[in-house]
Amino acid sequence: MAVYPKGTFGKMLRLPMMEVNYLKKKEKENNHGSKLKIIPLGGLEQIGMNITAFEYEDSIVVVDCGLSFPADDMLGIDLVIPDVTYLEENLDKVKGFIITHGHEDHIGALPYVLRRVNVPIYATKLTMGIIENKLKEHTLEKNTKRKVVKFGQSINLGQFRIEFIKTNHSIVDAAALAIYSPAGVVVHTGDFKVDYTPVFGDAIDLQRFAEIGKKGVLALMCDSTNAERPGFTHSEKTVGKTFDTLFADHKNTRIFVATFASNVDRVQQIINTAYKFGRKVVVEGRSMVNIIETAAGLGYLNIPDKTLIDVDQLKNYPYEQQVIITTGSQGESMAALSRMASDMHKKITIGTGDTVIFSSNPIPGNEKAVTKVINELFRKGADVIFQDTHVSGHACEEEIKLIYTLVKPKYAIPVHGEYKHLRAQAKIAEELGIEKENIFILSSGDVLELSDENAHITGKVPVGSILVDGLGVGDVGNVVLRDRQHLAEDGILIVVMALDEVGGVIVSGPDIVSRGFVYVKESDELMEEARLIVHNAMEELVDRGITDWGKLKAATKDVLSEYVWKKTKRRPMILPIIMEV
Amino acid sequence: MAVYPKGTFGKMLRLPMMEVNYLKKKEKENNHGSKLKIIPLGGLEQIGMNITAFEYEDSIVVVDCGLSFPADDMLGIDLVIPDVTYLEENLDKVKGFIITHGHEDHIGALPYVLRRVNVPIYATKLTMGIIENKLKEHTLEKNTKRKVVKFGQSINLGQFRIEFIKTNHSIVDAAALAIYSPAGVVVHTGDFKVDYTPVFGDAIDLQRFAEIGKKGVLALMCDSTNAERPGFTHSEKTVGKTFDTLFADHKNTRIFVATFASNVDRVQQIINTAYKFGRKVVVEGRSMVNIIETAAGLGYLNIPDKTLIDVDQLKNYPYEQQVIITTGSQGESMAALSRMASDMHKKITIGTGDTVIFSSNPIPGNEKAVTKVINELFRKGADVIFQDTHVSGHACEEEIKLIYTLVKPKYAIPVHGEYKHLRAQAKIAEELGIEKENIFILSSGDVLELSDENAHITGKVPVGSILVDGLGVGDVGNVVLRDRQHLAEDGILIVVMALDEVGGVIVSGPDIVSRGFVYVKESDELMEEARLIVHNAMEELVDRGITDWGKLKAATKDVLSEYVWKKTKRRPMILPIIMEV
Repeated sequence: MAVYPKGTFGKMLRLPMMEVNYLKKKEKENNHGSKLKIIPLGGLEQIGMNITAFEYEDSIVVVDCGLSFPADDMLGIDLVIPDVTYLEENLDKVKGFIITHGHEDHIGALPYVLRRVNVPIYATKLTMGIIENKLKEHTLEKNTKRKVVKFGQSINLGQFRIEFIKTNHSIVDAAALAIYSPAGVVVHTGDFKVDYTPVFGDAIDLQRFAEIGKKGVLALMCDSTNAERPGFTHSEKTVGKTFDTLFADHKNTRIFVATFASNVDRVQQIINTAYKFGRKVVVEGRSMVNIIETAAGLGYLNIPDKTLIDVDQLKNYPYEQQVIITTGSQGESMAALSRMASDMHKKITIGTGDTVIFSSNPIPGNEKAVTKVINELFRKGADVIFQDTHVSGHACEEEIKLIYTLVKPKYAIPVHGEYKHLRAQAKIAEELGIEKENIFILSSGDVLELSDENAHITGKVPVGSILVDGLGVGDVGNVVLRDRQHLAEDGILIVVMALDEVGGVIVSGPDIVSRGFVYVKESDELMEEARLIVHNAMEELVDRGITDWGKLKAATKDVLSEYVWKKTKRRPMILPIIMEV
Repeated sequence: MAVYPKGTFGKMLRLPMMEVNYLKKKEKENNHGSKLKIIPLGGLEQIGMNITAFEYEDSIVVVDCGLSFPADDMLGIDLVIPDVTYLEENLDKVKGFIITHGHEDHIGALPYVLRRVNVPIYATKLTMGIIENKLKEHTLEKNTKRKVVKFGQSINLGQFRIEFIKTNHSIVDAAALAIYSPAGVVVHTGDFKVDYTPVFGDAIDLQRFAEIGKKGVLALMCDSTNAERPGFTHSEKTVGKTFDTLFADHKNTRIFVATFASNVDRVQQIINTAYKFGRKVVVEGRSMVNIIETAAGLGYLNIPDKTLIDVDQLKNYPYEQQVIITTGSQGESMAALSRMASDMHKKITIGTGDTVIFSSNPIPGNEKAVTKVINELFRKGADVIFQDTHVSGHACEEEIKLIYTLVKPKYAIPVHGEYKHLRAQAKIAEELGIEKENIFILSSGDVLELSDENAHITGKVPVGSILVDGLGVGDVGNVVLRDRQHLAEDGILIVVMALDEVGGVIVSGPDIVSRGFVYVKESDELMEEARLIVHNAMEELVDRGITDWGKLKAATKDVLSEYVWKKTKRRPMILPIIMEV
């Protein structure tokens, strides 16, 4: 197939460190089975794309299967998924995917990876609900085995037993995992925070962390996202109190609240406050509608009767009885909020008499986009509130210390975060008394072998980033990206000419067509002179009897790029095309 | 000229609001001369590009002439300068440019604008020194009249008198302006902060602000950058104390300090601390070397003997006696710091045993780039310090209140900042008792006419952003940018075919060449099928006697884009080229 070229999946864009060194030898040596291998297949060179293999003898379990969003230089790319060659090559060992929670950076690659590694998925109820929406979109739900797991429950997968432990996070139903193997127990926190007063369900099961810790834990893999921040992350409930205050202060305006689609607890709190103040709620933005439907259907959202109304009913209520919960808190230009702010939304326009609350912080890289929307809203006459209206879903320094102190691991393996965050957690672990040589900041592809006696990085497996662009998975690699960057910078000059099949005479052209280079109508002279220069160069070559296409093309590139650089200090892509007639 | 097409300067990319309505009529009506016009020609729809015309009868003075950096969607653009059509059309009135300080967003467009509006420049000594470096680069220094002005000094320009008032900012020699006209006095703060203990020279001349205020001020144009931040901006000297502490804490490592090239006081403090700790100093990064040379030459930097050494001498000193001051604090990939972090610098490599201090905050939009460099440095084994090592150069809320209270203007015109910042200052002004209708948040191009009795926006002059790409000024406009964005997203498919001149028979092709679309080697089938589809469509048309080029091209685009979308969900640019032989 053209868009899924055979064999390219898993071969594109591998990271530099991935010498193919499958540890085949080592595997044989260690086949007496005393060591546990932890192999992150992504997530350590970028934010997102979390996926980690745990291997013991003939069994592999995989924790999470996330995507990451394209870096700024990945032009035109929609999303990035991990290279799972290692799993494909050990397919008979792979027992299942264990998913910690329903965020894209933990589940987003499933629809792509399942086509290659079709093993059962294990997750808590809401997480599975969100995964199922995804599988339906990709018409994969019939071919994928799934099992919903409850907190406290364990599942046996080959040599492993996996226990799901309740945590708190910015999405409900997040789980930490205790991964039991003959070599020892690994505790993996997933993304988490400690919320003693969560909006839905229980607080993180600290007792269970303590209990497992008391019995002895080999390694702790702990969320590092906020490891640089001192103190404790506030409870989600503090945002609810802020909503109460803000709604009381803005009794006479319509209220918009922009937040993350997946933050069901946040939505619950907006609905609670709206209900308290006698307002009706409309939800805008496809992703938010989807999640709310799923969460409400599974019992994770409690919406009072007649509170949620359709957008078309808004006209029946005065502004001061309306709340619109919307996507677009990251300044996404196509999200509902941006469209409402720029008069591109079919049904709602924001202006004077509106209050817009951003219940979110900009994710790094989105700062400018968010500010742009805030400025637009102010300019429209709306009041905009964007400070102190959000809490993080990740543990700060003191929470990380708490988990370490309960779990008391022998080895520390900081996960989830940029290198500086991993390093900050490593520092915390050291302060807490973990020996420096027992702390491992891994790179994707590292094979960390652990036993009670020791732990070492013993090799590398192939890892990498596979780019998804439209339907194409892995068909855009470095060559195509470089071309896009080149085209984006200075455009393209195409030189076409036709050569006589027999005599090698130029029978038409050279003509030059440009795109993205200059506004041609106002650069006649430049383009005409460029054409002449190529023409003369070609004539000279043909006169000298040189009709080799390669030479003609090379000469075209040389003379044209030199001329263009001299005249404009630009380096457009130059593409000579010769036709034979 | 091709790259400076006639008449395009000032015509490209005008903002939507710029109906050409030159107020010709109004000018005649008001020719009795009772009103002052304030006309911002840039700086209000974007950060940077500060330029404001003050007009009274036959006199115009222009405050600042800055550039702005390209927005994310301005692919390949180097910088953006204001459209000065209004000044060109009133050239006989324009008396000079008054420059408040030497930052790019206040001086950067001068080399371009001076070619159109060649009038004298007035600035303080260091500011002029920096401008002169710029003029030399553009070989303009001989044709540009310049006058260095001292604080407290006034210059007479037509109907105006302009007084320079000492302020503090993140560059030395920053000035506020008192602009005296027959219609009243306008105080323009420029970019400023209140620093009671500056590193070089005097504190802001608050007494003079008070004195002028006492006599009566028509309008205050005040820096809004930090209007959202409560409290007072810390003195530059606090950073010096931080350096002392950090140097004491890192006695055994080499120390790098990355900061803004133009922050001469910051450099002075790094040198002071280095000297105190017996370290030698090397300066890396062309822009920083330039500014330091200029500042030292003019007496704004005091470098102890034998403290500054050449990079080649570093090897003569142990690590703990070295300090490297460097550019690259914004994560710029080509700056010295990034090159030293990624082993691309010829003489210095950063690694274990190094401490890197970021004495800067990321400018909005640069967050990800800065974090990338920090992660790289940590990964190399360096220690990185990037918090609490910088103070802002802009006034916070309480400083803004102080200036308003000293100046007591009738009208408030917040300047310098995004819309949300201007609005925050407007709110402050209102709190201080300025009537709401006397507060003006202007847009670029607005003509604000003021007298002691009233103030109104009475019209619009043409304004806009002119894009500079290499040597081209204004030859890249919306059409070219749209093409670049399209090319960046999905690349280009070029379809070439040759038609017989007489019969309209296809004698060669259609062939398809792609760039930035798919990796062709692994998409043979897709490309071949695409070729066939175009071929069949062309044959069918030619068989039906249709040889009109326009129709052939349109059909090529239609069938190919439909096929490609179906197969890949991508929309590359499709460019049919027909040759006649």
